[in-house]
Amino acid sequence: DLVVMVSDLFASGEFDGLTVVVTAGPTWEAIDPVRGLTNRSSGKMGYAVATAAMEAGAKVTLISGPTALPDPERVRTLRVESTQEMHDAVHTHIVDADIFIGVAAVADYRPVRAADGKIKKTLEKMTLELERTPDILASVAARKPAPFTVGFAAETENLEQHARQKLEAKKLDLVAANRVGADIGFGTDENSLLLVEPGAVTELPMQPKAKLARALIRHIATRYRAKHTAKVHTLRRP
Amino acid sequence: DLVVMVSDLFASGEFDGLTVVVTAGPTWEAIDPVRGLTNRSSGKMGYAVATAAMEAGAKVTLISGPTALPDPERVRTLRVESTQEMHDAVHTHIVDADIFIGVAAVADYRPVRAADGKIKKTLEKMTLELERTPDILASVAARKPAPFTVGFAAETENLEQHARQKLEAKKLDLVAANRVGADIGFGTDENSLLLVEPGAVTELPMQPKAKLARALIRHIATRYRAKHTAKVHTLRRP
Repeated sequence: DLVVMVSDLFASGEFDGLTVVVTAGPTWEAIDPVRGLTNRSSGKMGYAVATAAMEAGAKVTLISGPTALPDPERVRTLRVESTQEMHDAVHTHIVDADIFIGVAAVADYRPVRAADGKIKKTLEKMTLELERTPDILASVAARKPAPFTVGFAAETENLEQHARQKLEAKKLDLVAANRVGADIGFGTDENSLLLVEPGAVTELPMQPKAKLARALIRHIATRYRAKHTAKVHTLRRP
Repeated sequence: DLVVMVSDLFASGEFDGLTVVVTAGPTWEAIDPVRGLTNRSSGKMGYAVATAAMEAGAKVTLISGPTALPDPERVRTLRVESTQEMHDAVHTHIVDADIFIGVAAVADYRPVRAADGKIKKTLEKMTLELERTPDILASVAARKPAPFTVGFAAETENLEQHARQKLEAKKLDLVAANRVGADIGFGTDENSLLLVEPGAVTELPMQPKAKLARALIRHIATRYRAKHTAKVHTLRRP
């Protein structure tokens, strides 16, 4: 019966039998072969989430923007550069996935035109025309069937409000929001998260990113099981 | 006499008694607390140059933009973020320096206004107004007295021509040019350099960056001595 099945699931790891796709790091939008638009993400949180999912028993694919971090052990890691490349890699690997966790801090805008050669700096002022990049999270949540979709939101203020807007606008299952600023959130080894879901808010206090990632994975496992109780049968091995 | 003095100088290291300031890495120009403009520099070449100068006997100050590299041993390392901060740190530390080697791939343009809060992505298109950042190399070469000033030029094409333009426009003593593209120059562990000086071009072939940096330092030492033969007396310890 269900109780036995769920305890089996626990015994073999909270994510045993599940396939998880995680994105991490920044993306890089080329202005020319040398210059680009990017953001402060070091990739540490995404790599910690991929490792925690693997430790919980999942088969994990990590799709990473440019970072200085080594590939996590026992995680299939794919390196991409632009948001478009990350979008395409995600949709290639999400097909059989149960859970998507988008930790990457993707560039929201890219230059309308990237120059083939290095731009010469002859002008005192310059304007750079930018266009929106594809919305990876929204496009994953819109798939039929959609995986359990978790987004991250790095915010400087009004964390819960902005996270809830993101949750609803993109039809996500959960948004993990963290406060960022000049000295917090990016590149550091500690972080805290506010988990925003339909009708619920949970705070995971400041702690090392590896520990925080394991707490997030435990939370996601609970919510995933609650949503997919009817599907638990299909997770049992013969 | 001069012969004895020069051999003394060699015996104790090609840069013995000299003070050298090196810049390295990219700079970061904030668009908002999360996003920014930067470039592909990993900082490896600049750190290798700082280490090679230290090994040659110099007192070295390394002024580095954001990199994932540890501070080189026995080199005073200062971390900065924007081109303006790098400019200011260079002029603070250059006062008593004999040689300046600008390896940093500084951002040439910065947003006219950086936002205090994270910009919300409500618009499909956006224009970013950019202005020139201060020219660190030219401002160092214009000092009275000026140190022996070496610039780097990362170019996608016409290496020698672009390097010579830079040499003359900024009144530098030497420009070390390297070819960059999608897969060469930045982030790699090997590189080659074309050394462009008034009336001379020297090629240092593809080799590991640490070895290349030592060859560059030997070349600079020769040229520095040629320019400052009259000053050799002041380098002798009593």
